Amino acid sequence: MEFKVNSKVLERLLSKIIPAVPNRTPMPVLENFLFEIKDGALTVCATDLEISLRSSINVAADENTKMVIPARLLYEIIRSLADTQIHFETESNSKIKLSTENGIYNIGYSSPEDFPAIPNVSGENEILLSGADLKKSIDQTSFAMSKEDMRPAMTGTLLEFVEEGLKFVTTDGHRLVRYLNKEIKTNKEEQYIIPERAISVLSKLLNENEIKILLSKTNISFHIGDLEFITRLIGEKYPAYNSVIPLENENIMKVNTNDLLSSIKRMMLFSASNSKQVKFSINKTFVDVSAEDIDHGSNAKEKINCEYAGEPMEIGFNTAYVNDILSHVGDDNVIFKLHSPTKACIIEPVEKKENEELLLLLMPVRLNN
Amino acid sequence: MEFKVNSKVLERLLSKIIPAVPNRTPMPVLENFLFEIKDGALTVCATDLEISLRSSINVAADENTKMVIPARLLYEIIRSLADTQIHFETESNSKIKLSTENGIYNIGYSSPEDFPAIPNVSGENEILLSGADLKKSIDQTSFAMSKEDMRPAMTGTLLEFVEEGLKFVTTDGHRLVRYLNKEIKTNKEEQYIIPERAISVLSKLLNENEIKILLSKTNISFHIGDLEFITRLIGEKYPAYNSVIPLENENIMKVNTNDLLSSIKRMMLFSASNSKQVKFSINKTFVDVSAEDIDHGSNAKEKINCEYAGEPMEIGFNTAYVNDILSHVGDDNVIFKLHSPTKACIIEPVEKKENEELLLLLMPVRLNN
Repeated sequence: MEFKVNSKVLERLLSKIIPAVPNRTPMPVLENFLFEIKDGALTVCATDLEISLRSSINVAADENTKMVIPARLLYEIIRSLADTQIHFETESNSKIKLSTENGIYNIGYSSPEDFPAIPNVSGENEILLSGADLKKSIDQTSFAMSKEDMRPAMTGTLLEFVEEGLKFVTTDGHRLVRYLNKEIKTNKEEQYIIPERAISVLSKLLNENEIKILLSKTNISFHIGDLEFITRLIGEKYPAYNSVIPLENENIMKVNTNDLLSSIKRMMLFSASNSKQVKFSINKTFVDVSAEDIDHGSNAKEKINCEYAGEPMEIGFNTAYVNDILSHVGDDNVIFKLHSPTKACIIEPVEKKENEELLLLLMPVRLNN
Repeated sequence: MEFKVNSKVLERLLSKIIPAVPNRTPMPVLENFLFEIKDGALTVCATDLEISLRSSINVAADENTKMVIPARLLYEIIRSLADTQIHFETESNSKIKLSTENGIYNIGYSSPEDFPAIPNVSGENEILLSGADLKKSIDQTSFAMSKEDMRPAMTGTLLEFVEEGLKFVTTDGHRLVRYLNKEIKTNKEEQYIIPERAISVLSKLLNENEIKILLSKTNISFHIGDLEFITRLIGEKYPAYNSVIPLENENIMKVNTNDLLSSIKRMMLFSASNSKQVKFSINKTFVDVSAEDIDHGSNAKEKINCEYAGEPMEIGFNTAYVNDILSHVGDDNVIFKLHSPTKACIIEPVEKKENEELLLLLMPVRLNN
């Protein structure tokens, strides 16, 4: 079997697929690309059994075949070649031979039979949406996925199709993000949970272009131009998160996002590495933000202007979580809706946008003193 | 004691000194800045006992004093502040208090008595040279310093003042770089060995400006603008490297540097992780460059044009070392001067520059086959 391909064309193709190749795996076959040549097209796939990537180019080949080729070695070789024609050839000795004008590269390869099947998600449920919208939804919510495997559903991002649009929800039990995109109307009420690694890879693949999404019970497939990204879903029930969102938080603090965020970044230098606690002492026109590192005998306190309607309150938060939330609120001014120092706090942008709704929830921590 | 300083002015000062603060040290006092206030000047120092940095600014203070302040914490606080006036104050409780318009930061500090003395290098031996020249000399040679502590002298860079100029020499026993800067004439014949960490930090501090160097038996001090960089010297005798430089390598190969370098980068993908070997099969008009990864059953061979005067030769090198050397030869074309497959090879740029001489030496490795 033989075929020819331009080095830069192949490099572009492989660079799209390589993100699915796992860095470490107990299954060595996953460290390969699957090359499938069929009727004049070369399709390249990779998978880590959770996510898969697939794309094709046209090539002139003399027969149909499948090959499994070491992914990183091949990608690095192709990437390091100048713009040149590459001649692929399989020989009887289970090596693939690549020839260019000046060089010959022989690469050992494994049997294509061992390569896992890439799921084909058929089109029963098809949605079109803008890549920019999808990317924004992911970037707005992904930070709050749980890192702990105890409750698998919470390690992923919930996509919840509701009447008003498409909701993206993440929570790790300490904070929660709910982002609603009202542009995406689908007349369905369904929930899908996408694993963390899929979210992270997908976010880097997205661009301005329109995306086609195909949904099944076990997998989602995203068609991004000529690239197909498939991920298995987390087959668990997402926690009933709506019940933890308080409705009666009537103490309202409005504050400049950047003022508070830059203060929080300084507080992170002081909040002791174990407690990571920052204290908000909220008054009518200002909030005192303070942190202390008892082990090193250092502490900090800053006064920030705010508008507060409610009883004066002292409330503690995890500094890193406040930092995450303020970094994702996406508005110059932010509202904290408080109930009491032990109840969940709601954080929202002051300016509401027409086609989206963002709600952030943060659990307080018990104050040291 | 109290003084005032602008946050951005102090940030600039601290950013110059922080590179001398060690990341890990068994001596916690080294993780601090020494602040010394004397007669209206604030001098900040840091040291890891090998290298030290020192610089000053003017401040209005009410008395002379010394303080030892946690370096990273202070630097991060100052860096995160907007452009503002900071009021430093020491209180009786062994805390330093920093006040700004909106914030108060208390930092615990240790006793200045425990802070090691920074060497003062006096001016018996003073040299002026351009920062760009010094930076080039370092960047050209530093890669070949030995990483092994067995022979301490070889872990540093040799500065050798000779009649023709200033020589920079590095070697790890497998390769050697000798760079002569003929611009720097000093009428002395002396050797100084600068430790690796000093070379690495110094390279980042250098710019176009003129540098004043002060030399003593145990330390070198570099005055870079208003910053003083001091390093202890390695108090060992440098090996007699001239005896290993062959004079009778009469087989001469001339080759395009980039052609060979880009081929070597591909060979690095194949040269087995244990042997790291690349084979040069040199003929009159071309050299075959080849590498093999026996464990993974892959291999590569490329043909590169060259001009060769000598007997056809097969010679093996460590791929990574060839890569290093070609990356530092600094010319479009390179000459390999060979004797035999077991003797040291000399590598030089084809074009000789008027005010410098560069010689690179590489030991071959025994070919597998």
